[in-house]
Amino acid sequence: MALKSFIEVHPDSHFPIQNLPFGVFRPDTASLARPGVAIGDYVLDLSAVASASIFDGPILKDSDCFHQPNLNKFLALGRPAWKEARATLQRILSSTEPVLRDNAAFREKSLFLMSKVEMLLPIAIGDYTDFFSSMHHAKNCGTIFRGPQNPMPQNWFHLPIAYHGRASSVVITGTDISRPRGQGYPSGNSPPYFGPTQKLDFELEMAAVVGPGNELGKPIDVNDAAEHIFGLVLMNDWSARDIQAWEYVPLGPFLGKSFGTTISPWIVTLDALESFACAAPEQDPKPLPYLAEKVSKNYDISLEVQIKPDGQKDSCVVTRSNFKNLYWTLTQQLAHHTINGCNLRPGDLLGTGTISGPEPESMGCLLELTWNGQKPLSLNGITRKFLEDGDEVTFTGVCKGDGYNVGFGTCSGKVVPSP
Amino acid sequence: MALKSFIEVHPDSHFPIQNLPFGVFRPDTASLARPGVAIGDYVLDLSAVASASIFDGPILKDSDCFHQPNLNKFLALGRPAWKEARATLQRILSSTEPVLRDNAAFREKSLFLMSKVEMLLPIAIGDYTDFFSSMHHAKNCGTIFRGPQNPMPQNWFHLPIAYHGRASSVVITGTDISRPRGQGYPSGNSPPYFGPTQKLDFELEMAAVVGPGNELGKPIDVNDAAEHIFGLVLMNDWSARDIQAWEYVPLGPFLGKSFGTTISPWIVTLDALESFACAAPEQDPKPLPYLAEKVSKNYDISLEVQIKPDGQKDSCVVTRSNFKNLYWTLTQQLAHHTINGCNLRPGDLLGTGTISGPEPESMGCLLELTWNGQKPLSLNGITRKFLEDGDEVTFTGVCKGDGYNVGFGTCSGKVVPSP
Ligand SMILES: [Ca+2]
Ligand SMILES: [Ca+2]
Ligand SMILES: [Mg+2]
Ligand SMILES: [Mg+2]
Ligand code: NI
Repeated sequence: MALKSFIEVHPDSHFPIQNLPFGVFRPDTASLARPGVAIGDYVLDLSAVASASIFDGPILKDSDCFHQPNLNKFLALGRPAWKEARATLQRILSSTEPVLRDNAAFREKSLFLMSKVEMLLPIAIGDYTDFFSSMHHAKNCGTIFRGPQNPMPQNWFHLPIAYHGRASSVVITGTDISRPRGQGYPSGNSPPYFGPTQKLDFELEMAAVVGPGNELGKPIDVNDAAEHIFGLVLMNDWSARDIQAWEYVPLGPFLGKSFGTTISPWIVTLDALESFACAAPEQDPKPLPYLAEKVSKNYDISLEVQIKPDGQKDSCVVTRSNFKNLYWTLTQQLAHHTINGCNLRPGDLLGTGTISGPEPESMGCLLELTWNGQKPLSLNGITRKFLEDGDEVTFTGVCKGDGYNVGFGTCSGKVVPSP
Repeated sequence: MALKSFIEVHPDSHFPIQNLPFGVFRPDTASLARPGVAIGDYVLDLSAVASASIFDGPILKDSDCFHQPNLNKFLALGRPAWKEARATLQRILSSTEPVLRDNAAFREKSLFLMSKVEMLLPIAIGDYTDFFSSMHHAKNCGTIFRGPQNPMPQNWFHLPIAYHGRASSVVITGTDISRPRGQGYPSGNSPPYFGPTQKLDFELEMAAVVGPGNELGKPIDVNDAAEHIFGLVLMNDWSARDIQAWEYVPLGPFLGKSFGTTISPWIVTLDALESFACAAPEQDPKPLPYLAEKVSKNYDISLEVQIKPDGQKDSCVVTRSNFKNLYWTLTQQLAHHTINGCNLRPGDLLGTGTISGPEPESMGCLLELTWNGQKPLSLNGITRKFLEDGDEVTFTGVCKGDGYNVGFGTCSGKVVPSP
């Protein structure tokens, strides 16, 4: 029989006992940030669980990692600690274990209605990197920007391309996104365009959260890379296409990206995702030895993007994709990132890049979906080339298990006018 | 008469009482990191000065900013606090003030020989950005990579181009740099090159250290930007030209840069540099209004790069340049960085980009100096196309005052073989 919690969890909830994703929350603005796990409609306060001396395994027994305002210290401990925490939490939340179930005072202290708490950034992000690992996305962008003759950059099939992103402007779901101002291409002999972006876009991505890091100068082997990944979040890499197009030659995206990147609050662990692992696509040409892994793994995670225009009652699904559309795996991304000796640190964020699938309705951003504004989308009768002020963009991600989901909740943000 | 310290300072020292740059050090590996200022051959321990209640101004009196392992808290306080600290320190170090001069026990506790202490990274760097602000460098690189017809990217004269760099691998002077491995261009139909970089280079840069930041969504006005800059350091943006050339299309430099970036330990304040301010170059075309500043300021800082090959007794000067060769000012860089609403935080590092001058002997990297390896340099009879294992690269920077220097000390690192 499937593992069950004493807490009632709806069958369509993202957060059954099989999931137990980690986040950081505070019960109200006057109280301290602390780690928690999601269970059904509740958040279990890990600082309360730790204070009750319930983490009694060898690694966590004397650790203060759950009395911290972020998960970085827990992440640094590595998979043995993560497994220890998961086992303890699955035990105390299970339907057969009385310690929490039968202790009303302890439940009162440690379980909070998710709808009543404030979710915070779960990690202090030292560095944020964004990859470009969906072949379909790369091909569509290449076709739009450079034409259909040679859409793929020559290096694309040899390495997981990436750029350094901006860590300071990574924000938690629910944070408004101000429409950025900036320069765009000049028309004719006039000076460059300057003003609010006219091509504001979302990018449907997920991101890996790094656990233990590596020393500068010491690369991580691709076959050991999974030990350095704690879990995944949904990520919206908001993008201003006009700013990006004008600025990005020759040093890459900068202000077209750095005005905001939204992540979902719950980090779903690789351990919870393991049941949804699937084979990654065959790679041709064969990757160089440092990227050739014994097991090449993706995850079957259904992704969806909805847009709710200002004042509309309903939101409209604009794309459906899946994490398994990625060509380069998370472990290849991580191994590539460190092959030059670059050091990762606990809490680093590695975005996958926009996850577009092969079908037109699985493209992961408006640039692709509207073909750079040439084919506007219809949302319940309203058209969209790019995002308008007041649009609320919501991502969801979920793995469908047998009678339960392992889900990511939502990652959303509303566009507000330029200052 | 010029301000003088009771501590004897050689006329060619970089650290007279007119300078007083801030850093972080520890007397030995068993003791805590703490802030200090350089004075002649000594470091004055600011935690000791603070513990003696000598900072008695309104901002610093009750602050614990000098009882921290980095300068971030002090940086966040802004220019009024910086001026208060400078005034107090110039007073207690001056030849006419007895408080430190005549108190042997206090001197014993607070003054350390610089040669005996360990200098540490002075700041926790939230984000590191690297600009591309020397026209000569951009032109030379453009000519080498894209030919002489159209060397300058179309956007170059309209905005200070930049990319996000890697914060984790910024290291303090004296740290060895492991030759990175990575991919390079394939030749013919073979797979890409893989192995230790064959084109390891330095980049002669300086970097601004950000003081108070800004809220996400709230740009900083260019005429207010100097209030957000604490000071400058020397910076070597080590670069692997073969890795960079192969990876950088379309998302910019990544592993070709992220294996190490060296900074000098002493942050020279804008207040100390003010006597060496000079006009920035005339800009044509006129910058857009958000980049048009009332006063457009550079600094006259002489820069020099020396290479000492392994086993050689002497090092060899390979280039001499000057900070005033920059086209885009620090304040324009900072204002551009935030125009999209991107938030800066105290301790952020903004590299200028390679500072090349107009003459062949003022080019700021080997890529330019050897024209991508085509014209090897001669160093006392040894030739160099790019850096070899064992080469030690040392930058110095100094402003020449009337009878004194305001200097940056050195920024150096030695290349060690790939792991
Ligand atoms: Ca992206
Ligand atoms: Ca550079
Ligand atoms: Mg973004
Ligand atoms: Mg570097
Ligand atoms: Ni497992």
